[in-house]
Amino acid sequence: MTANNPERIVIALGGNAILTDDPSAEAQIAALQKTCAHIVPLIEEGKQVIITHGNGPQVGNLLLQQEAGSSAKSPAMPLDTCVAMTQGSIGYWTVLALKTELKRAGLDRRVDVLMTTTSVSPDDPAFEHPTKPIGPFLSEEDAKAAAAVDGCTYIEDAGRGWRKVVPSPQPLDVPGSACIPTLVERGDIVVCVGGGGIPVVECEDGFRGVEGVIDKDLTAERLAEIVDADNLVICTGVDNVCVDFNKPSQRALGEVTVAELERYIEEGQFPQGSMLPKVEACIRFVESEDGRRATITSLERLRDLSQGAGTRIVK
Amino acid sequence: MTANNPERIVIALGGNAILTDDPSAEAQIAALQKTCAHIVPLIEEGKQVIITHGNGPQVGNLLLQQEAGSSAKSPAMPLDTCVAMTQGSIGYWTVLALKTELKRAGLDRRVDVLMTTTSVSPDDPAFEHPTKPIGPFLSEEDAKAAAAVDGCTYIEDAGRGWRKVVPSPQPLDVPGSACIPTLVERGDIVVCVGGGGIPVVECEDGFRGVEGVIDKDLTAERLAEIVDADNLVICTGVDNVCVDFNKPSQRALGEVTVAELERYIEEGQFPQGSMLPKVEACIRFVESEDGRRATITSLERLRDLSQGAGTRIVK
Repeated sequence: MTANNPERIVIALGGNAILTDDPSAEAQIAALQKTCAHIVPLIEEGKQVIITHGNGPQVGNLLLQQEAGSSAKSPAMPLDTCVAMTQGSIGYWTVLALKTELKRAGLDRRVDVLMTTTSVSPDDPAFEHPTKPIGPFLSEEDAKAAAAVDGCTYIEDAGRGWRKVVPSPQPLDVPGSACIPTLVERGDIVVCVGGGGIPVVECEDGFRGVEGVIDKDLTAERLAEIVDADNLVICTGVDNVCVDFNKPSQRALGEVTVAELERYIEEGQFPQGSMLPKVEACIRFVESEDGRRATITSLERLRDLSQGAGTRIVK
Repeated sequence: MTANNPERIVIALGGNAILTDDPSAEAQIAALQKTCAHIVPLIEEGKQVIITHGNGPQVGNLLLQQEAGSSAKSPAMPLDTCVAMTQGSIGYWTVLALKTELKRAGLDRRVDVLMTTTSVSPDDPAFEHPTKPIGPFLSEEDAKAAAAVDGCTYIEDAGRGWRKVVPSPQPLDVPGSACIPTLVERGDIVVCVGGGGIPVVECEDGFRGVEGVIDKDLTAERLAEIVDADNLVICTGVDNVCVDFNKPSQRALGEVTVAELERYIEEGQFPQGSMLPKVEACIRFVESEDGRRATITSLERLRDLSQGAGTRIVK
């Protein structure tokens, strides 16, 4: 990164960046506006910014609505189409929110929202072991009846009822991302791979959608490699990754090497399904090529990225 | 258009290009695949292709579902967000369909789907006279109760019940379209402004969404001007625009000037709400700059565009 070669960053937004406690469109736009207020200072500094986001609560709500409102003339759409729909809605809200914050900062910048698929392998072992619960809670009887129809796996979810579980395969490629370097080089801010992207597998005659949910941080990592980003920035609820979390010996990590992180992982320092996949995504990115960095921090600390905010993972 | 300067065309797809009689996602992808089979020959010829599409039946179905499945935790989304959602779903289906047909033709081309808003004037007279029916049919009593809550206009629709009507303002700009020339110049096919685009108005602090439906052919026309297209191609159910339609003197129009078309409009040759807005969009485009052409034809005749298919509007 030099004056002629601005830093390119991929920012992965977490659920709290969009949905707070009010699920209305208005409240989600307002939450995104607060989020964008933390991103604009990075744009002002001259960084090339690519924004990715989750869609967990939104696609969950949409699936419930689709089931409840399904009819012969207006049937519930499958998961891949629902993910595409949330890329549309959240992408749209992000444009409104980001444009407002850019205008407030006196910046006239274009925002491009790309609907993107994420290709996965049909042989991914995740397809044999679905783990990600989606959609409504059912009674045991209804779950078994549904399984007999759709051949999917339904499991009992923590005493709250039965739910369909879908695979969470590894992201291989983001076919629609090839244009992103061109777009950010001309000064645009890009929003893409919402919800980890719509999972597709390559088949003889092109691509087809599959039922599955790709971890959004892993897709952001894959995207960061594809667009040759300098820094993968994963936003979460805490300023820094901690070791000995919630113990008297708790310690926030600043700059940390992959070797140190791997030792902490072995010690079981990071919980599965929350901090562990974020740490793993960062390690994967840093190891993918020399000079690549990754950061895990909160939205509030984002503006101090160049001043050493957050946990900074280096090789 | 020369060998070094390939023809740039904006194709506006109609409803029959996506939804036939089966509203499932699978059937809509299959319908789009047939549609894309008609578009690929134009890509093979070297044309720069930008695809726009309608969303009438899809957003109608989504609004019904959202109403039926609405709850406090998962409230029905407003119209602008629903339009954004259909840009996501139809854009995704178009990628799958087009990729399949490109592969079949032995072409390895990228497809970019852009979620785009369309700005309209807050002073557009359409806001005083909403005309476009959307959402479910209601009883007179329910319609009056809904009007008291949301302040919107509800009208009796051809004996089938009462429906909300929203404004159909004129498209002013497509803020997300500035990147399109760059994308098509690098060989990408672009899908955008689905459903006429999500209507927004510029306000003091950026943009805000408004309830409204923009005519998709008028937005395609506006887009064709912005991206400096050579030809605006509006696809419809007939091969040619006809005069004296369904009379013994019926005559299909080939090449036709703006002056001739204006005479036919005065004669009342084209029905409002179907062929008239398409003809008007074409006139607007042809008159916007010298050398611009417009075509109205069927999907089936698309491949013969360079051989003079359809009704060709010239200045």
